[in-house]
Amino acid sequence: MPAFRKVVIFGAGLIGGSFSLALRKAGAVSEVVGFGRSMVTLEQAKQLGILDRIGDDAAREVCAADIVLLATPVAQMADIFQRIAPHLGTHTLVTDGGSTKGDVVAIARMILGGKIGQFVPAHPIAGAEKSGPGAAQADLYQGKKVVLTPLAENSNESVARVRKAWESCGAVVSELTPEEHDAVFAAISHLPHLLSFALVHDIAQRDNRDQLLSFAASGFRDFTRIAASSPEMWRDICMANREALLRELLQYAGELHGLYQALERGDAAKLEEVFSEARKVRSAWQQQ
Amino acid sequence: MPAFRKVVIFGAGLIGGSFSLALRKAGAVSEVVGFGRSMVTLEQAKQLGILDRIGDDAAREVCAADIVLLATPVAQMADIFQRIAPHLGTHTLVTDGGSTKGDVVAIARMILGGKIGQFVPAHPIAGAEKSGPGAAQADLYQGKKVVLTPLAENSNESVARVRKAWESCGAVVSELTPEEHDAVFAAISHLPHLLSFALVHDIAQRDNRDQLLSFAASGFRDFTRIAASSPEMWRDICMANREALLRELLQYAGELHGLYQALERGDAAKLEEVFSEARKVRSAWQQQ
Repeated sequence: MPAFRKVVIFGAGLIGGSFSLALRKAGAVSEVVGFGRSMVTLEQAKQLGILDRIGDDAAREVCAADIVLLATPVAQMADIFQRIAPHLGTHTLVTDGGSTKGDVVAIARMILGGKIGQFVPAHPIAGAEKSGPGAAQADLYQGKKVVLTPLAENSNESVARVRKAWESCGAVVSELTPEEHDAVFAAISHLPHLLSFALVHDIAQRDNRDQLLSFAASGFRDFTRIAASSPEMWRDICMANREALLRELLQYAGELHGLYQALERGDAAKLEEVFSEARKVRSAWQQQ
Repeated sequence: MPAFRKVVIFGAGLIGGSFSLALRKAGAVSEVVGFGRSMVTLEQAKQLGILDRIGDDAAREVCAADIVLLATPVAQMADIFQRIAPHLGTHTLVTDGGSTKGDVVAIARMILGGKIGQFVPAHPIAGAEKSGPGAAQADLYQGKKVVLTPLAENSNESVARVRKAWESCGAVVSELTPEEHDAVFAAISHLPHLLSFALVHDIAQRDNRDQLLSFAASGFRDFTRIAASSPEMWRDICMANREALLRELLQYAGELHGLYQALERGDAAKLEEVFSEARKVRSAWQQQ
């Protein structure tokens, strides 16, 4: 018998669709019901085998669900929490796929109230440049990290159940507090995205931008790959994780200032020291 | 009959070795003679079919050479210009593979004096993470850009001959002045390298760096790939192109300051505008 009888997903795109396909491939779910803002998208998801059914009454669906996944932009989650909060079954657990956690937890806590223990927040580290149901893959999470940020109100059993769902997708699950999560991702994800957007924007403003771009090569290509990410999503992530990101930006500006001064005074040894330390750490880092 | 009878290369690594292999593959050269600081490297290059002979008397070799390629770090080029300057044949042309041009041109002008017209500077845009003769490939330059930065003293015929050599390697050759070259590459290559080194160095300094790196994913991987580049080479490039790079750093710091202020005042629309413009330009850019 599958570990989960019924899973309800809000948002049947890359994150939600891949969650469903992975659980189905693992034989871990009997039925997947989907909700979303676009009927076209939901129909497409059904045709792709992501959904058994398109839901039409959230209240009825979530009361009998084992797992509810919120796989929409974070900006839509407050509405969804509102719709489902009164109807969650006593054994129903909610998880999400948001890239920031402090803001989602704050919203959930406000709306779910006494049911907050049923929400086990998650962040699957499995972005891709594509989106929509057509981009969903059963192996998207295979070997990828999913960070759970359990709350004090979660029972161990609830956390274990949600962990089991993500592990059934092939993910390697780890845990951080929501605050730790947001600080970590400000440094290793949100800041690099901002820096990459900033570089391309800087070049885009110039009269000779076509000439500049015509000579850009593989280093530029890789450095700026993330500058082709969704502007709306990254606007929301930056706003949601504003304080941690401001701290990172300040720290980075200090780092750049140090390099500027070294360069200005012709301090080749200092440059080499910084570059060598960076290279050592980057070369030793093996992507998980 | 091959277009070039004799080519002499100083440095038989990635750049010089690939130049030789490409010319040989194209049937464009009869004989390639190599010089370098390490006999082990030169022997390896000979075994790999990069060199016909290891040179032992630079004076004799360069007087009869059609093309001399300086494919060493820029820091070694002054010595090489000194060694070859008195012995260049009247028809011998010199080119190089340095990543910066203003400094190389200044050195060449000082040492070659009246023979400066025989030097046609070049920058092949075909870096790779590997180096040494083992990394050389006959198709390294295939479809890649090579920038010539001709000097006022170069005859049209000299520029055309050097262009032909690089084109025989499969390269797409374009021309800039040395000053234009250094300004362009400060913006689209040297600055991104500095920013990438800075980010990894910033993270490397922290107590929780192992935790941070354990959650880093594909965005971080791509953004920091160039932070694994050679510290010595990038120290030299930064120092050689110091003024243009300082200007770029200042401009970028202004860009970051604007984003910091937007974030601080919660100006989501401004963030989205910057990100959208960047995405538009980055998505439209097709790597040449």
